[in-house]
Amino acid sequence: MKSYHVNLGAGLSGLTLKEHNEPTPGLNEVVIKIKASSLNYREIMILRGFYPLPVRPDVVPLCDGAGEVVAIGAAVTRVKVGDRVAGQVFPEWQDGPFAWENAAQLGGSLNGMLTELAVLHENAVVHIPAHLSYVAAASLPCAGLTAWNALTGGRGLVAGQTVLTLGSGGVSLFAVQLAKLAGARVIATTSSEEKGARLKALGADEIINYAENTDWHLQVRELTNGKGVDHVVEVGGAGTMEKSIRSTAIEGEVAMIGGVANDSSLLNVNLITYGMTNMRPIAIGSKAQFVAMNKAIAVNGMQPVIDQVFHFSEAAEAFRYYMEGKYFGKVVISHE
Amino acid sequence: MKSYHVNLGAGLSGLTLKEHNEPTPGLNEVVIKIKASSLNYREIMILRGFYPLPVRPDVVPLCDGAGEVVAIGAAVTRVKVGDRVAGQVFPEWQDGPFAWENAAQLGGSLNGMLTELAVLHENAVVHIPAHLSYVAAASLPCAGLTAWNALTGGRGLVAGQTVLTLGSGGVSLFAVQLAKLAGARVIATTSSEEKGARLKALGADEIINYAENTDWHLQVRELTNGKGVDHVVEVGGAGTMEKSIRSTAIEGEVAMIGGVANDSSLLNVNLITYGMTNMRPIAIGSKAQFVAMNKAIAVNGMQPVIDQVFHFSEAAEAFRYYMEGKYFGKVVISHE
Amino acid sequence: MKSYHVNLGAGLSGLTLKEHNEPTPGLNEVVIKIKASSLNYREIMILRGFYPLPVRPDVVPLCDGAGEVVAIGAAVTRVKVGDRVAGQVFPEWQDGPFAWENAAQLGGSLNGMLTELAVLHENAVVHIPAHLSYVAAASLPCAGLTAWNALTGGRGLVAGQTVLTLGSGGVSLFAVQLAKLAGARVIATTSSEEKGARLKALGADEIINYAENTDWHLQVRELTNGKGVDHVVEVGGAGTMEKSIRSTAIEGEVAMIGGVANDSSLLNVNLITYGMTNMRPIAIGSKAQFVAMNKAIAVNGMQPVIDQVFHFSEAAEAFRYYMEGKYFGKVVISHE
Amino acid sequence: MKSYHVNLGAGLSGLTLKEHNEPTPGLNEVVIKIKASSLNYREIMILRGFYPLPVRPDVVPLCDGAGEVVAIGAAVTRVKVGDRVAGQVFPEWQDGPFAWENAAQLGGSLNGMLTELAVLHENAVVHIPAHLSYVAAASLPCAGLTAWNALTGGRGLVAGQTVLTLGSGGVSLFAVQLAKLAGARVIATTSSEEKGARLKALGADEIINYAENTDWHLQVRELTNGKGVDHVVEVGGAGTMEKSIRSTAIEGEVAMIGGVANDSSLLNVNLITYGMTNMRPIAIGSKAQFVAMNKAIAVNGMQPVIDQVFHFSEAAEAFRYYMEGKYFGKVVISHE
Repeated sequence: MKSYHVNLGAGLSGLTLKEHNEPTPGLNEVVIKIKASSLNYREIMILRGFYPLPVRPDVVPLCDGAGEVVAIGAAVTRVKVGDRVAGQVFPEWQDGPFAWENAAQLGGSLNGMLTELAVLHENAVVHIPAHLSYVAAASLPCAGLTAWNALTGGRGLVAGQTVLTLGSGGVSLFAVQLAKLAGARVIATTSSEEKGARLKALGADEIINYAENTDWHLQVRELTNGKGVDHVVEVGGAGTMEKSIRSTAIEGEVAMIGGVANDSSLLNVNLITYGMTNMRPIAIGSKAQFVAMNKAIAVNGMQPVIDQVFHFSEAAEAFRYYMEGKYFGKVVISHE
Repeated sequence: MKSYHVNLGAGLSGLTLKEHNEPTPGLNEVVIKIKASSLNYREIMILRGFYPLPVRPDVVPLCDGAGEVVAIGAAVTRVKVGDRVAGQVFPEWQDGPFAWENAAQLGGSLNGMLTELAVLHENAVVHIPAHLSYVAAASLPCAGLTAWNALTGGRGLVAGQTVLTLGSGGVSLFAVQLAKLAGARVIATTSSEEKGARLKALGADEIINYAENTDWHLQVRELTNGKGVDHVVEVGGAGTMEKSIRSTAIEGEVAMIGGVANDSSLLNVNLITYGMTNMRPIAIGSKAQFVAMNKAIAVNGMQPVIDQVFHFSEAAEAFRYYMEGKYFGKVVISHE
Repeated sequence: MKSYHVNLGAGLSGLTLKEHNEPTPGLNEVVIKIKASSLNYREIMILRGFYPLPVRPDVVPLCDGAGEVVAIGAAVTRVKVGDRVAGQVFPEWQDGPFAWENAAQLGGSLNGMLTELAVLHENAVVHIPAHLSYVAAASLPCAGLTAWNALTGGRGLVAGQTVLTLGSGGVSLFAVQLAKLAGARVIATTSSEEKGARLKALGADEIINYAENTDWHLQVRELTNGKGVDHVVEVGGAGTMEKSIRSTAIEGEVAMIGGVANDSSLLNVNLITYGMTNMRPIAIGSKAQFVAMNKAIAVNGMQPVIDQVFHFSEAAEAFRYYMEGKYFGKVVISHE
Repeated sequence: MKSYHVNLGAGLSGLTLKEHNEPTPGLNEVVIKIKASSLNYREIMILRGFYPLPVRPDVVPLCDGAGEVVAIGAAVTRVKVGDRVAGQVFPEWQDGPFAWENAAQLGGSLNGMLTELAVLHENAVVHIPAHLSYVAAASLPCAGLTAWNALTGGRGLVAGQTVLTLGSGGVSLFAVQLAKLAGARVIATTSSEEKGARLKALGADEIINYAENTDWHLQVRELTNGKGVDHVVEVGGAGTMEKSIRSTAIEGEVAMIGGVANDSSLLNVNLITYGMTNMRPIAIGSKAQFVAMNKAIAVNGMQPVIDQVFHFSEAAEAFRYYMEGKYFGKVVISHE
């Protein structure tokens, strides 16, 4: 069986395809025939060398993947051969708050999903919603779960609250969809009328063009009777943080998605203090949150937005396309 | 101006209409021209004499009402003349958990809404959603808020969870609608195919006919892969409690709506203990919860189910019709 | 190496001591040289045959044990040889709410601690506080953690709140101590002046003799200005449940400890509803809760109450003594 | 009766004493004979003109005060003449999260406590612990409640967790005492050995001299096995914020006390994101929190630290002394 491999900071030119022996599962392990995997901004951070968590040498990249269980260890009870599953990005993070001791992650310190066969502990896989294809399901583990955690993991989203999303990256699109299925109002920023129309079609209630209106936080205030939003799914990092805080209601929450910002822009502390804004950094999510999100997706028949599907043999093209940043929705690699 | 009055245990024959002077608001008070009021099971409990909270002599009945602010006291800042508002059933219960010291309630120890003009503290009114008529809004304060508290007040409802509702009383219909707009799956019990069809039209995912299937809790288990539901909105009281508990998942929650049960049926303690079921009694809800619910209703354009509208002059007929129990949706009295 | 074994319903006469090969740890497993183990009411339930969870044939009994790590598997990172640890009763229950899929438990469906060497997954052990002997630490996993969960796992205990404990069983003594170190006020019921004095010495603020005052709930009300307590650690089951509920404040919580009650006494549902009492069943606790409790015990230098220590060779005597029920504090078996 | 008055930005020279008519209580109001009042940093902010909330012209300063109820309005039910009470700084903030519409505050937009007789709504007073003198109780409403909210209002403090306090201002001393009575471990920074000894006497477990060790966050890490603390009570603002964040554990919380910082120092956003630090600004606290804190203080017999007591006639001296910043504990003004 074949896997792709990369190295921290070695760029896309370091992407190699290697042949391996077929794995056999340990006592509590399962072997998954990966049907689809998907790209996230973290892969670019790894290729460029500024990923904040450890990356093993010659790692199999991609934390996102879904497939079919083809073999299980003798002690496995939670899944069976034939089950449709996805991998939990932090396999050790089962429930409760994040902890460093659970920071091992697929496609980082552990081998990831750009492979034909992946081996995971039975606790590290979750069943995927029945109505989703493998391509759709492969988009969930990182971007979907990050959005879910951002919305529900802190001061949990309540129907009727207002959510602000930024742009049309993977996490933001999931945030629009998940917030809408949970009964929230969504204000989405974007840079073009065409993307705005697509965000509206996904359910966003209000669109703000941040290219035309650089003081977009004032428009957010206007759209909320001056109060600000209850939740910001903050993926812009230093570039947008100040305006995100200025867009947030007293006692509202800014969920900070780490992976996107690479600069070190500075923030006036008083902005947070006098804005009475809760700042909550997010590290994807726990397995329990993944299971909960899948129920929400299943009950509401939600379909993730897929921009483009490349074949396993075109992995390099998929990376290249993703790096151009012109997608609207997930960039997925089909292994079938 | 005119008000109806009743007395605890005096039955419907004690309903009288009286003429009063026009009220003037105190410093922080508002005068509301009531446009619609609505009936709840508590009114029957009051007329029959077994209401668990104090009732003042010659009380103006009905805790549910909505109208237009027509006068405000000199110090009022939270509402203005012309605002469309509803009354908060427990005027003193602003936020946080319920407390006895906040137990004064409209249509009980305080005068209620079956009147042309009601006077309330400015903290005891909430703005109603713009898309709702007064008739629709009058249905919210008791039945709507009880359902909202049942779903969100304890182990808050998360999109994707499963909710069980019982029958088609006012609280149950709101529970179906509010659970659905929050992204939940709903299993609803009912006694007829026709009501089942209406519950489905409201959004219920699964219907169980409890008249045909007295062991309906087994069907709930079946519909949840043996796990049981996450939330029960328990309005049946002693008559259904055992089956409700048997329908609930480990660590799930049964929200107990007090007002419906008048008997004293007994429950085996071990049912709760070994079922790992959280039992949470509900007393309508706080003003903060009312405000939050109204946002959810507004954002999602929800329309409460109204069965019948009587005129203010037909109040006795409205009570009589309500007592027959044949409604599907709220029984409302229009004051216009 | 030697282990004791029992069978469900086979009574104490079924207790046998067997010789086994020395175990070697699997990849993620640790071998613990058990230094002390401890008895809980669940052992009696197992011997008598009415334990509510599955029990494997010829099980090594006792879920409580502490010892020294003497060997670790090749992949183990969380503990090292020489560490002082206790076992997590539900090894799979790491964090978050309880779930059936994590219900496997030591001394039940899994082999327990009445053995010279136990083998556990590295995730299923916790470090014990440095100031505690093995004998003291062996008392924590079941009774200590149950009390901790009862106090902190639901509507978490806040300093200044009032806690009611019942009698002087293992869970109740821990509840007194843990509630006091967290700044709560404790009202403890007991049946004798002598036990009352010991409970006072442990920190209880008020003692109620339930033998002399069968209407002790009225005394609880009196001691709380009529309001009732915020938390009941309910170990009496059906025998005391009604009075416990009547002792609880509006919106207070009764933590229901399952294992003690074997009867099926009945409860009037309206007691809960009109008392506005939250009922929360407890199943010991998660590993995360165990870790948290150990920090509380360590920071506050708390010493569990040990009634009697038997030697490993006297296991049958320990069981017999425990069954007499005359202890005040834990009955521990030393393996050294 | 006499009151002192100040004006925003007018400095201490604007402090004037005026004679007024005796107040009579409105329907739901109480008249309090103030026995003691107390100073907070906000008073300096007001005198210097940079207080972030509105200040009425010629305001009676000081939000902190305690006294005896000497008259009540006709409708008052929650207190009676003779009760010992303190005022709630935000009279409208009863429970739940802070909201702008509840931002009116004593000694700011409303008249405060440096007066012989204060008039408050009955909902805006709380009973003070029986064991505290008026001088001691006058220290609670702002500094005490801020510390309580910092510890319990967000990710609530659990016994056994570690709290970091900064310096020996009013909030910090309360934080040490309240954290200790709740069973936490406390690491306190200070600038002198003598203050360190006094902090230890108050209960602090570890003292760090930040004057000697400017990289004190490294020492905090060392004292927590590299993990960092669970809670920081952050009163230093921009001057200490970066080190406070660096001292905090993954998923720990920095409670940001607004009033102290007047500069606009900048913070690297990535510090928060990669530290996985929750930032939570604090605005004193709600009345419900005040009531809860008083229970904790009463149950544990806690005594606030009083540095100096001035007489009502020496109010200017009290301000001057407070402005020198050499106190250890509260500066109180006795009105008796």
